[in-house]
Amino acid sequence: MKRLVARPLTREAFAAFGEVIDDTGTNRFYINGGKAERIHDLATAEATGPNARVILSLFRGTPYDFPLTLRFVERHPFGSQAFVPLSPAPFLVVVCADTPDGPGEPQAFITAPGQGVNYPRGRWHAVLTPIGANQDFLVVDRTGDGNNLEEFHFAEPYEVQLP
Amino acid sequence: MKRLVARPLTREAFAAFGEVIDDTGTNRFYINGGKAERIHDLATAEATGPNARVILSLFRGTPYDFPLTLRFVERHPFGSQAFVPLSPAPFLVVVCADTPDGPGEPQAFITAPGQGVNYPRGRWHAVLTPIGANQDFLVVDRTGDGNNLEEFHFAEPYEVQLP
Repeated sequence: MKRLVARPLTREAFAAFGEVIDDTGTNRFYINGGKAERIHDLATAEATGPNARVILSLFRGTPYDFPLTLRFVERHPFGSQAFVPLSPAPFLVVVCADTPDGPGEPQAFITAPGQGVNYPRGRWHAVLTPIGANQDFLVVDRTGDGNNLEEFHFAEPYEVQLP
Repeated sequence: MKRLVARPLTREAFAAFGEVIDDTGTNRFYINGGKAERIHDLATAEATGPNARVILSLFRGTPYDFPLTLRFVERHPFGSQAFVPLSPAPFLVVVCADTPDGPGEPQAFITAPGQGVNYPRGRWHAVLTPIGANQDFLVVDRTGDGNNLEEFHFAEPYEVQLP
């Protein structure tokens, strides 16, 4: 198996793959007479195709053991998908650039407490992968008609290690 | 001042006003080979008007004192607005039906830990009102061109009390 070591999720390292949803966003301002701060426009939710809607759902995830064997990635051709944790435990984020031959080399990240991510429409990514604890997530993605799921199985799996 | 007593937020009591985002949703199923449960389609995010996008933002709110004087409500004619708490403290939810003369009689609710709400497009509601503690929220709403904020100031304010 090829080896893949996760690195800390940062806005800079993740910029080519999607959006980090955390409190370090720089477009921020006070609203409601100063009673709330808005950290604005951290990610865009997109829903395309027939009868598409952006929807909010909850995911209750169970943790994975590490090192983890990564056999495949998936993508959603009709919409984005955001995962925002509702507890402080970390989760694993694996993404791949798209190439003419399918997903490029996977990149693995581990979130800091409170960090979420948004995968833009069509971005290759691994399934939700909680680390260490059961975790609930708010998920913002797409429903509608048509097949919104593609999978790509690697010829050789990856062994993903935590840092 | 007129008196308004908040009641517990339930799916049934809130159905005429918006969507409750919590883990009691009944459209639920397992995904990812059983590693996650999806509590599906709890709310729809809507963005209309010129250059509209559904966006994800964070709000950092400071708590309000009670009894609270409710002087106005607001609505967003071009989009929905969802608030999902990232901590277990409660918040106050005030909504009004729309009438030919503006907002109807306000209805006040207090959330249970973990409950969020979605205000559909055009729903009259009070501003974000944390109770008892600083609170962070994931907010799913709309950006774009045009004026997406209307306010209505009551002729006589309401005194809102917790149950």
